[in-house]
Amino acid sequence: MTDNRKTAESMANQAREISISEFFEKNRHLLGYDNKIKALLTIVKEGVDNALDATEEARILPDIYIKVEEIRKEKYKVVIKDNGPGIVKKQIPRIFGSLLYGSKFHRMRQSRGQQGIGVSGAVLYSQLTTGEPTKVISSTGDGKTHKYEIKIDVKVNQPKILRDEVVEDGDNKWHGVQITFIAEGIYREHKQSAMEYIKQVAISNPYANIVFDTPNGRVEFARGIEKLPEEPKEIKPHLYGIEVGILTRMLHETKARTLLTFLTSEFSRVGRLSAVQIIKKAGITRENPQTGKEEPEFNISPKKVDHNMRVALVDAIKEVKLSRPPTDCLSPLGAEAVESGLKKELNPEFTATLTRPPEVYRGWPFEIEVGIAYGGSITESSIMRFANRVPLLYQSGDCAITKAVGQVDWKRYGLQGDRMPEGPVIVFVHFASVWVPFTSESKEAIANYPIIIKETKLALQDCARKLSLYLSGVRRAAAIQERKLIFERYAGETAQAIQELTGEKKKAVEEMIIKLVEKRWGEIVKEMGEEEPEELSGEGEEAPPPEENEKEEGEENGEGSGEGDTEEDSESGK
Amino acid sequence: MTDNRKTAESMANQAREISISEFFEKNRHLLGYDNKIKALLTIVKEGVDNALDATEEARILPDIYIKVEEIRKEKYKVVIKDNGPGIVKKQIPRIFGSLLYGSKFHRMRQSRGQQGIGVSGAVLYSQLTTGEPTKVISSTGDGKTHKYEIKIDVKVNQPKILRDEVVEDGDNKWHGVQITFIAEGIYREHKQSAMEYIKQVAISNPYANIVFDTPNGRVEFARGIEKLPEEPKEIKPHLYGIEVGILTRMLHETKARTLLTFLTSEFSRVGRLSAVQIIKKAGITRENPQTGKEEPEFNISPKKVDHNMRVALVDAIKEVKLSRPPTDCLSPLGAEAVESGLKKELNPEFTATLTRPPEVYRGWPFEIEVGIAYGGSITESSIMRFANRVPLLYQSGDCAITKAVGQVDWKRYGLQGDRMPEGPVIVFVHFASVWVPFTSESKEAIANYPIIIKETKLALQDCARKLSLYLSGVRRAAAIQERKLIFERYAGETAQAIQELTGEKKKAVEEMIIKLVEKRWGEIVKEMGEEEPEELSGEGEEAPPPEENEKEEGEENGEGSGEGDTEEDSESGK
Repeated sequence: MTDNRKTAESMANQAREISISEFFEKNRHLLGYDNKIKALLTIVKEGVDNALDATEEARILPDIYIKVEEIRKEKYKVVIKDNGPGIVKKQIPRIFGSLLYGSKFHRMRQSRGQQGIGVSGAVLYSQLTTGEPTKVISSTGDGKTHKYEIKIDVKVNQPKILRDEVVEDGDNKWHGVQITFIAEGIYREHKQSAMEYIKQVAISNPYANIVFDTPNGRVEFARGIEKLPEEPKEIKPHLYGIEVGILTRMLHETKARTLLTFLTSEFSRVGRLSAVQIIKKAGITRENPQTGKEEPEFNISPKKVDHNMRVALVDAIKEVKLSRPPTDCLSPLGAEAVESGLKKELNPEFTATLTRPPEVYRGWPFEIEVGIAYGGSITESSIMRFANRVPLLYQSGDCAITKAVGQVDWKRYGLQGDRMPEGPVIVFVHFASVWVPFTSESKEAIANYPIIIKETKLALQDCARKLSLYLSGVRRAAAIQERKLIFERYAGETAQAIQELTGEKKKAVEEMIIKLVEKRWGEIVKEMGEEEPEELSGEGEEAPPPEENEKEEGEENGEGSGEGDTEEDSESGK
Repeated sequence: MTDNRKTAESMANQAREISISEFFEKNRHLLGYDNKIKALLTIVKEGVDNALDATEEARILPDIYIKVEEIRKEKYKVVIKDNGPGIVKKQIPRIFGSLLYGSKFHRMRQSRGQQGIGVSGAVLYSQLTTGEPTKVISSTGDGKTHKYEIKIDVKVNQPKILRDEVVEDGDNKWHGVQITFIAEGIYREHKQSAMEYIKQVAISNPYANIVFDTPNGRVEFARGIEKLPEEPKEIKPHLYGIEVGILTRMLHETKARTLLTFLTSEFSRVGRLSAVQIIKKAGITRENPQTGKEEPEFNISPKKVDHNMRVALVDAIKEVKLSRPPTDCLSPLGAEAVESGLKKELNPEFTATLTRPPEVYRGWPFEIEVGIAYGGSITESSIMRFANRVPLLYQSGDCAITKAVGQVDWKRYGLQGDRMPEGPVIVFVHFASVWVPFTSESKEAIANYPIIIKETKLALQDCARKLSLYLSGVRRAAAIQERKLIFERYAGETAQAIQELTGEKKKAVEEMIIKLVEKRWGEIVKEMGEEEPEELSGEGEEAPPPEENEKEEGEENGEGSGEGDTEEDSESGK
């Protein structure tokens, strides 16, 4: 026993706190720094995402400059500069010099960043691999430019300021942020590179102007439209996502004096009637001193709502019909923008796009936008995934979007391919939400919530149906054109035969036949080209496929989303 | 400009620190709490992993009791009790009540836990979903039992103690820990459940005795062997994994007075000669005051090693041949234990096992153990993955082990299947390391370092070769048996024919033929069953397949591991 006691003691002496910086230094691959090629992409991505968030928040059309320069073998200088509002002096060290610090985590509105570990993660990786600090230059447009050199004190996750300088120049009203990282990396231009990332950013952010100086020369992505998207509004949490733990904290922190006002003021879309209903269903009562009867207690102080009442409230919420959360917290691209982005960058022969009505997972609103581009300059199939306008280039196998694509029966829509459509087809999916449930801190894949997969699949099926009609139209037109050609080809012979039989002039008969063919088939062929594919479907040659069966996985009530039997594929071989 | 300034200011006001508890509360799926079924598995897993680590560290044969009880619809009580050394009183609240706290993160030796967020993650999930605290009862065997009820104060990631009680009972020398969680969950017994987890734990930890009370009744996993594995030793970091950032910190913190002693004392396996070589190659010199010549400066104070010298040192390390790190920090199962585990639980017809020599990734030693079990009671193929004796049940698609299995050309070894062997075959892979590079905090898959994939593949190929020889032996024996049967079947007819031709008695001829057949083929058939499959291969009927080509991915030098062109599969469809 004495030995065991000693061991418990000795174990105790070894235990200590682990700072979040230490944690990610050792687990850098969780932040997207698995290897040198991906590291360079991740640095560019974190800088550009921040620049786009900042400019949009300040309602400024983004002008972004990126430079990637090899300064020594596998050692790069990465510069990212924006024309955003800049960062106030006192915030600069914390934003760049500590992980889990930011303005976006506690806010319920759509933005690219959310976790407060993106750009500081790049600072961490830079100092780890090269020992170099990150340079930050910023001005809010007041004529003062702040120049910082920052590292992270890893053991305490706090900024270490190596340089802090102000340049006063009243005439220079530049505002924005310029960041310079020195980090290990390898520059490539393939499907999962910084270049591909920027190309896709240009598609999903057509109002941004981007200049990219690469080791291989300059590439410019000109602004396509001069208008920023609608600004998303901040919303309050929705009751359908609430759990006992969060409710407990909110009851403790609220300034509301009664449970009724707590429910109506701290949550999204809870009217007085719904609040009354919830409290009644939860059985929160008090004795009426006059009648001696138990009556619903709407005015109980939130601080006095005990554990059993909180559990009862959460249960009651599930039984009350509430309005969906407002969706002005979202900023979808819009079907038109998706279409113009796809047309501009891919030059396809056909596109179909769709924005689904907003849905809710665990109380968080989201919206799915889908585009399918076919033919033209497209030579091979691929999926382009986006979350809050950010392209996702890695971990596709894990992503809800890929799962949804794999669940569509592409053969029913006239395409080849088992889980992925094959042929000259690009599938574009944008997931917009106030909180993207990423599968890791590197933010590369969306977690497999059934409602997200379902919504994506429905949108894909809708677009695939349009493509299918287009393809069947094209194929029918081609068939008719073929028949017409055959008629024309044999017009001479037919005329000859008629001449022999009836004595009519061959020439006249032939012309008549050609005219007839032109009249009958030509019009049809012409129609096919002009009419909307939808309207052709009435002719029933290839009816649009019926809706595939949807398994409802308990997501009617926001609470249930993602909490069902969502097993992964079993590991057993088939 | 005034507007922009305002925005920079207003953004600044929103920014604040995010506690690691808040982070994982919102990102619970990163800890393995994606859905209610998986949540129950994760809670059991965290408790059992901790219990096994604690008992082994204290050199106690583990007796583990688990109870999973549904106390209300989708609300469970989970109890995990061990006979370990217990936890000293002052540590209990921090270990259970704050994330990123523990003894295993900063230590270089093999253990199940490493991040300090496992068991506290389960406390966090419990309080989030049910509002209930976690009960911890512990004694170090001194007759005092501490009873705690703990929650996490999420906003500051600190323990909130709801109950703290000591029961003195001098006669009761029980030591160990008992944890009780109350959490939302769903209990199932399928391929990715708590039950499957415990079954696989029993295979990889045959010295543990486990009793599992499930909602469907008690299941006992008796101890298979009475001996704990060798205790892994703590080691120092290896220079091949060192980067400028870490070197900087170590130089700053060391007690060594000179660079030379720093290199020889703070790192694993660096002798005086290697250290001299590194300093020379790094070109760290000083002027000899007597001769006026530049000479290597071995005795420079670590504090005076500047940035350029550190960069030069890291470069120099790559050019110096160093011994591999010691591997007594590892505790592999051993080929025999793997074999007995597979035989005990799966009752196969054939097994092949192999432990590869230790290797190094990013300076961290690791070892791969592989087993292939075939036929017998096995009906379908599957992969069983383990990291430091912990079964991995999810995210197989992402895992280095699955990648390695997919890279083996199973058809060359007489099995069907493209990326997974098909048929009655179980592939068992154990990855043992001082630091497992998991792809997420939920510790379900191993990151794709090329050297890890390569080592696994080599081990698999070796075992597959043995299986292939066995299978070809079995198939050859079957073919010979067939021929023998045919001879026997036609013995009567042949004898009749011979009788007619030669006048010999049919009966006698038939007996002679059967004797001959028995003599010639019977012995061969008997041999096949007895001889080692290896020795049959000499007969060349189905030669063992040659080594598949290995692409060397720059891992000769530990530093390069995982830093090469390790792109993920491109997302484009084929």
